[in-house]
Order: sequence, then C-alpha cells, then structure tokens
Amino acid sequence: MSGVKHMKWWGWGVEGVGFHHEDKPAFGPFVAEKVGLDITGDPVVPPELESLPVPVPKLTDAFLGQLTELLGEEHVHTETLDRIVHTYGKSLRDLVRLRRAIIPRIPDAVLYPADEDQVRAIVDLAVAEDVVIIPFGGGTNISGSLEPPPDEARPVLSVDLGRLNKVLDIDAESGLARIQAGTLGPDLEEQLGARGWTMGHFPDSFTHSTLGGWVATRSSGMQSDKYGDIADMTRGLRVVVPGDVLVIRPLPSTATGPSVREMILGSEGRLGVITEVTVQVHRVPEERIILGYLFPSWESGMAAMQDIASSDAAPTITRVSDARESAFSFATGKHKPGFNLSGKIQKGLMTVLEKRGWDLEKVCLSFIGFEGAKSHVAYERKLVKTIVGQHGGIVVGTGPGRLYDQKKFDTPYLRDFLLDRGAGGDVSETAAPWSRLMEVYDNTVAAANRAFDQIGVRGWIMCHLSHSYHSGACLYFTFAFPLDDVDPLVGYDVVKSAIQQSFVDHGGTLSHHHAVGTEHARWMPEDISAPGVAMIDGLFSTVDPGRNLNPGKVTGH
Amino acid sequence: MSGVKHMKWWGWGVEGVGFHHEDKPAFGPFVAEKVGLDITGDPVVPPELESLPVPVPKLTDAFLGQLTELLGEEHVHTETLDRIVHTYGKSLRDLVRLRRAIIPRIPDAVLYPADEDQVRAIVDLAVAEDVVIIPFGGGTNISGSLEPPPDEARPVLSVDLGRLNKVLDIDAESGLARIQAGTLGPDLEEQLGARGWTMGHFPDSFTHSTLGGWVATRSSGMQSDKYGDIADMTRGLRVVVPGDVLVIRPLPSTATGPSVREMILGSEGRLGVITEVTVQVHRVPEERIILGYLFPSWESGMAAMQDIASSDAAPTITRVSDARESAFSFATGKHKPGFNLSGKIQKGLMTVLEKRGWDLEKVCLSFIGFEGAKSHVAYERKLVKTIVGQHGGIVVGTGPGRLYDQKKFDTPYLRDFLLDRGAGGDVSETAAPWSRLMEVYDNTVAAANRAFDQIGVRGWIMCHLSHSYHSGACLYFTFAFPLDDVDPLVGYDVVKSAIQQSFVDHGGTLSHHHAVGTEHARWMPEDISAPGVAMIDGLFSTVDPGRNLNPGKVTGH
Repeated sequence: MSGVKHMKWWGWGVEGVGFHHEDKPAFGPFVAEKVGLDITGDPVVPPELESLPVPVPKLTDAFLGQLTELLGEEHVHTETLDRIVHTYGKSLRDLVRLRRAIIPRIPDAVLYPADEDQVRAIVDLAVAEDVVIIPFGGGTNISGSLEPPPDEARPVLSVDLGRLNKVLDIDAESGLARIQAGTLGPDLEEQLGARGWTMGHFPDSFTHSTLGGWVATRSSGMQSDKYGDIADMTRGLRVVVPGDVLVIRPLPSTATGPSVREMILGSEGRLGVITEVTVQVHRVPEERIILGYLFPSWESGMAAMQDIASSDAAPTITRVSDARESAFSFATGKHKPGFNLSGKIQKGLMTVLEKRGWDLEKVCLSFIGFEGAKSHVAYERKLVKTIVGQHGGIVVGTGPGRLYDQKKFDTPYLRDFLLDRGAGGDVSETAAPWSRLMEVYDNTVAAANRAFDQIGVRGWIMCHLSHSYHSGACLYFTFAFPLDDVDPLVGYDVVKSAIQQSFVDHGGTLSHHHAVGTEHARWMPEDISAPGVAMIDGLFSTVDPGRNLNPGKVTGH
Repeated sequence: MSGVKHMKWWGWGVEGVGFHHEDKPAFGPFVAEKVGLDITGDPVVPPELESLPVPVPKLTDAFLGQLTELLGEEHVHTETLDRIVHTYGKSLRDLVRLRRAIIPRIPDAVLYPADEDQVRAIVDLAVAEDVVIIPFGGGTNISGSLEPPPDEARPVLSVDLGRLNKVLDIDAESGLARIQAGTLGPDLEEQLGARGWTMGHFPDSFTHSTLGGWVATRSSGMQSDKYGDIADMTRGLRVVVPGDVLVIRPLPSTATGPSVREMILGSEGRLGVITEVTVQVHRVPEERIILGYLFPSWESGMAAMQDIASSDAAPTITRVSDARESAFSFATGKHKPGFNLSGKIQKGLMTVLEKRGWDLEKVCLSFIGFEGAKSHVAYERKLVKTIVGQHGGIVVGTGPGRLYDQKKFDTPYLRDFLLDRGAGGDVSETAAPWSRLMEVYDNTVAAANRAFDQIGVRGWIMCHLSHSYHSGACLYFTFAFPLDDVDPLVGYDVVKSAIQQSFVDHGGTLSHHHAVGTEHARWMPEDISAPGVAMIDGLFSTVDPGRNLNPGKVTGH
C-alpha cells in the first residue's frame, strides 16, 4: 500500500493489539452484571478477507492507464485489501457491515499521490472524467464521512494522503509548523518533538488519524482547554480545488470577510483535498501532569468543571465521568478493581469517603491536567484544588492521571472486543451551554434507555464531560448492548438515533468533534437551521458543481 | 430619526465634542515640527447640510406607501440629514467626500424596523421589488462597507437597526447574553453592567458602534488577548435571509461542517441582516488594571510582547507603541509633555533611563492589562514584569494606564481636528505571524514614506502592536499628511494603497479588525487567493442571487 500504514481492515488499530480482559479481574463480572454478557467464552474469529464479494474495479483500462502514468504503477492500487480498507471508517455500523459483507459500493482504486502536484492532477482528472474522489487520512472516522454513496454509478477513487507525511517547516518565532496533511498523529509529534515542540492535539484517534483528517472533520483533542480545537490551531491551509489551489496564509487573526479557513474546517473533502496545514505549535512545557479527583456526585463534578471554566485557572484538561463511567473505569483496573491506587491507600480512602457520608455508588472520577513552568503548574493546581473542594471533591493524586494518560488511546479497541463477544458499542458526543448540560444528559440517558427497551436489550450508557469552554462543554456518551436478540444494525440505528435526537432537542449540537458525514446529516437542519444547510450546499455547489468531491457528506445531498 | 442616536453627519462623535489642543501645550509644536502644520490658526467651519446636492429619493409613492404601512410613517425617513448620515462611514475618504459634496449615490430612504419580523418583511420586500438594502449599525466603519454603489440604478434603502437595542436575556450559568444587534457599545455594557456582567469588547469605535456591526465586520476590542475577538465571543446568531431566518444556536463549539457562524462573521450585510447575537459575557472582575511600561526600543518592546504571548501569563491587553507613536503620546499629555507622571517622578525617571544608556528618542510606551481576582492580577503582573525586565523594559505604574483607559475612545476625534486644520489622517491595520511583524513594519513605514514623497508632502506614520495571539499580533498604523499641496482624495489613495500593498506583500492580512468593504476589496485575491474569493462570491450568490443585499462589498462584485 505504497508504504502507508493502515489499521486492520475489520477493526481498530494494528494487528495483534487489542483490548484484553484477562489482566482486569473486575471487568468480566462488571459486564455480566450490567448487560448480562459473558466475556469469558471464545471470541468469534475475524472474518476472512476472501469471503467478501468485492466487484471488479469500475475503471476503464484507458483511465487506469492515465492514473498509473500520473502516479506510477506502484501508487495505484486495485487489490481487494486496499479497496476494503478505504471503504468505511470505524463506527459500529462500519465494522458490522464489513463482518457481514455488506459493501454495496467500494472504491474502484486507491491512489497514493506523492505531492500536491499529483493531487492537483488527480482532482482535475476527476472533474474532467466525471469521477468521484474521496480523500482519506487515517480512516478513523465514525460518522460515515468516508464511504462511497451506495448508488454511485461513476467510478470512485479513494485518495490516500499517507505519503504526504512530513513536517515541512517550523517557524520557531511564531510557533507555527507547516505540515503535510497526511501525517499521522504520532509521526507528527515525533517530528515536532525532536525539535522541542508539540502540537498538543491528542484526540482519542490520535494514533491512527492524520492532520488533514482532523481539519476536515473539526477534530478536538483532550488538551483542547489550553490548546484549542483544531479550528483554533489551524492558521494556514493549502487545499487543492478543481483547477486551482486555495491558499490560506498563516495569520493569527483576520477580518477579511466570511472565513474561508473556517469553510475548509469541517468540509469533509467536499471543497477539495487538503494537502498542507500550518498549525500552532508549542514548546514542550517544563511540567505536564494530570491529576485524578473524586466527586461525591455527577452534579458536584459538573458544577466544579463549570466553576473552573469561569475562574482564573486555565488547566489543559477538564474531565469528569458520571457514576456509571466511573464504575466502568474502576472495573478496568489492572489486577484489582478500584482507583488504581495501592491497596492500602485505596482502602483508607474508601473509609474516609464513607465517613464523609459519600455514597460510593455515586462517586465520580475526574481528571484535570496542568502544563507550564513548575511554579505555574503549582499555582494552577492550587486554584483548582480550592474549587474542587468547594464542591466536596478531593484530589487523589497523579497515579490515576498517569494511568489515564497511558491508556487514553486504547478505548477504541474495546469496540472490537465487545463485537467479538456478542455486544455492540459505540459513542456519540455533543456540546451545549453549561445551563443545558444536565438537561442534555438526563434526557439522553433516558432516550437511550427507552431505545434499549424498544429493541429489547439490557443496554448500557455512560458519559463524561470534557473539553470545557467559557460557555459550555462537551458530553461524551458511550453505549453498548448485547446482540443476542437484536440485529446490530437495527439496534444501532434505534439507539444512535435516539441519542442524536435528544442532543438537538435539548440545546446540544450533533457533534462536538466527530463531524457529520452521512451518519448525522439528517439532523443538520435541526442543528444549524434550513438556511444554514442551504448556505453550505451553495458553497459545495460553487466549488464542485459536478459533485465529484466526496458527494453526500455533511448535508446529505 | 426614530429616537436613534447618530454621530455628526460630517465627522466623528457627537456635536460639541472634539479633540482639543489648548490643554496639550506640547502638541502644537510637535505637529509643527513633524509635518510642518500650524494648528493654532482658526479651523475651517463644518460644511452646511443645505449645501449638499441631495437628489430626491428614487422611490415610487406606491413603494414608499408599502414601507410606511409596514413600519409606521415615523420610522421611514427620507429627509436629507438622515439620508446623508447613512451614506458613508467615517474614513478620511468618507469625511472628505461629504465636505466636498461628492455623493454620487445616497440611500433613498432610511428604515428603522422595530423587530425581527419587520426586518423579515423589509428583506422579502427588497427581494420582491428588486431594491438594495444596506444594514446600518453605528456607522463607524472606515472600509467603505456602508456606501451604496455609485452606479446603483435600483432604489437603495438603509436599514438602521438602532431600535433593536436591548439585552434580551442573560444565561448566568453559561455566561451567555442574548442581545439585539442594534445595541450600541455603551448601552450594551450598561445593561450588562447593571447585572454584574461585562462583554469585555472595547474597540476604538466602542462609543458609537453596535453589536451587529461588530459581528458583520469581525471587530476586535482592546481586551481581545483575554476575551477574544468578536468571532470568539459570538456563539449564537439570528440573521434574516431572503425568505427565512438563519438560526445559529449558542454552542461552545461544534463539528457540524463548514462553520455557518463564521460565514456570517465578516459578511458585511451580504448574507442578510443580523438581528440578534448571543455573546459570551463575564462577571465584572474583582480587579482590573492597566500598567504602563517603557522599553528602550521598538525591537525590545515587540520581543517582550512575543515572549509574553508564549509564556504562562495571560494578560487582557498587550500593547506597545513605536518610538514615533510614543513621542506622539508624550506630546498629547495634558498641561505638560511626557509620561503623564508627576513632574518630579518623571524627571527622576528620565535621569535613571539616561544613566542606563537609553536613547530617549527611541523610548517606546507600552500598556499591559490584567484582570481577575486580586491575587491573580498580582501573579500575572509578576510573570509579566520578569519578561519585561528581560527585554530591558521598566514598569512606570498605573498612572499612564489609567489615562490611556480614559482616553482610549477619543482618538477618532483627531481625524476631524486635523482635517479642520488642513491635514488628512487615517489608520490601517494588519496582523501577521511574529516572525514577519518587523518585516511588515519596516516595509510599511518605508512604503508610506515613499508614498509621501510621491505626493510631495511631509507625512507622518506611527504604529503600535496590539492584540497578541499565540502566533502573531496586530500592527496598527496611523498616518497623516498636510493637504497644502495635494488633493486629499488623491493623497489618501496613494498612501493608503501603498500601506495595504505592503501588508499583503509581507505576510500580513488586509485588515485585522476593520473589515474589507470596498476599500480593501481589490487586494482580496492576494490575501485569501482567487479560489477563496470565488468561494465567498459563491456563498453570496447562493443566498442573494439578485444582489439585493449590500452589493459590492468584501469581494468587490
């Protein structure tokens, strides 16, 4: 595949790596109790690639010839594995469809351009020949942003940016790095880190997602409280559009009309192919720590996050889990359940909390991160400690935070683990003003539970608050249900729809950082109003009247 | 005028208020020395309104009847004063044209809608009858965003939002205020302040500009380092578009495709009429101070601002003037020239600086602002003091800062003062990455000086850095030249063009916060590239195919 790394075609991450329960003794009993699933049996075996009914590529020899002449034969791929890898993202819907061989339309070829000139040639060829192109970064999307429309009659090409993987330049004076769009998170941080810099963008998908993908989907990393969302970090852009290259120069701020920079952000390939991004980078700080905290309730934890957001403190991470997610975290502790503290300390802590009158069933786990000079970190910690205390919370030290930091990119593996053992799970996230977060939370949990009843399963939904802003925060829900009595695609539709509908009904957005794709498109008029959708559609038609650029995404048209 | 306050038709601010030199003994000699202008003579008398060749309104009785039926007779104005007030903004070009009676096209009527429903009716009527409408806030714009195209054959209506002037609601939990778009800065802060809140948006135009105008032009206030630009503050929007109302719900952040919120920001009336904005508001802080600092040179001052921006400190204001602007500031001191310190302290200070080897001709004045709890302000001050010291700067206390704070909205009056005395002056501002700011500065000063030579005047250009960001800052230039030997419009064209061209040639943007209008439109392809302009044009055409909404602005088409 042109030397470009890809994830497993049937699941998350790399071959040989997965979620394991054997070293987490409390996890099996937890899952059995909560959703009645036995995880100790033999998992299903991943499907065989050869079993998939992959049609021959819908490409004339003449057109293939044009492509190979353009890119070199070794960078135009039509074999099954590469085409399948580029068909879907990694949502539950995607994984189930692959396992079930539901592939109504897959890319006819995968192209690996070497540089922007080759991308230009591809885009212009696609327009001239009326072919569909779908830009591809790491393939981690879970909103259906990558799949070819099932009824697309024209040839479909996946344009994999994986060979554009270099940090081109660091403007040390301005804290700006010019980076090729296909660069994966770890490669990018490695190249920056070697020169003492960090971008500070760490979404859950970090290990397998690319800078271009982050921009195209409006990604947000776990340190967004300090470093901002990708929309804040992105200062300059190069985007190949039909017949030209859009160039947004790196500027700290500008007043030159409607923001074209903010049109490319979230454009999901519909306005062209992003080839280069100039992002803000920061010197690796003297100190970087994540502290664990416990709150006596979800309400007190949320209130503390809100107070921190309006205080003088400026942490890098603010995160608090509801009681269910906290219990889940405790159950995934290695070798013993709990807060990942030593047995003695933990026992002492439990005694203290019970003496304080805490209901241990309601305990909420929180992580707050700090960065900067040592003295600054100390100052911020003190500010935050006071606020946490005002809400009845306590600090439990750096141990849990360190563990969270180590494990933070492993969560997506759980989706495959569950699927292998007869349960479906996925995530939905939103953002809303502080005043409406509890309303969104309560109604979404209720909506999910109604959906579980509707499909007749013992389902599970848990949530954390993260990404705090002045006016609100993100709520991130994880849900799962056993598949004994329900078709996974039907069940997913019912549960996922109930959650998304609850978001827009209660003042939340469709997605805080997972984008729209095809999965969320039908709620767009409810989120940004019909005139807003018309404006986006008009923008897409302006740039791409022939609908050659990833058609159907964002607005559904 | 429907009870709506307006500025003088021929100049800045309210009748009876202006810039005075009598209490600033050093100012006259300073101006005489720098540009050879004698300001002690009698100023010219403002022109007579009656002298203007105002054509009769280009409106049929039937159409006027429709308008008065819609809004009530008292809210449809066709008298000369109201039409003239709504013809231009307040740039030097605007003021000179009014003084010279150059008014090729003025609005045929001025409408004062009472609410969003009336705005909807106006917009739909305008589209149905093929009439041009130009939304009007406070009229402070200096980029030509308000003027009717000189050759516009269709009727032109100015839609003044001045009656939509209420803070409708404060969501105290979220720090969000829902405010009508026509609310003037002081009215807005008064209504917020009465309930313990502030928006923290204080552009130079604050006294006479409106929230809707700030959004439509991507305004930035002097405390943007902490509170953000208007683009950051604006969370929700209601915008009347042809046939509908665009509703952007207040959200802290979202990943729903290209940002429609960011399309309205900077749209200058071309996408509809903004009626309501939900903005971030903050509790009035315990302490708010602005400190004065001195630096031995422009280079050291700029370097200090840059280091502050990448440090752990987070001041509200960072500002440093070049040596010329510092000298100008010293010359406008009341009763005596200097740093606005008591005579004894100042004399002592001068001695100290000279002993340190400072060249007093090169001294640069700086202001840095802090807000928050008293202890937080103390902490931030200390962080900043260390950095200032590392660059050879010194703190000169709160006196100059207090004075700056009091005088900050008075600067625009100077334009009229000079014009009355035979000199033309205006401002141009940009933003660029830190690494290119000195290049932008040096080249812009050189370009202005070449332009002065070209038109044969002894001109003056001075600059300050303000609005610091992680990756760069704004440079704000003020220029002036005597009009003895040059036509002011010709001179303005030459100097202003040279400055703007220098911005885009050296990595700066056309405008950091003054918008594009007609004044900067021709450089747009150089700033955001031709595909960027095409995208904005496509967006405008989508919403407004008949070009009824403030045509010609931003893209020039």
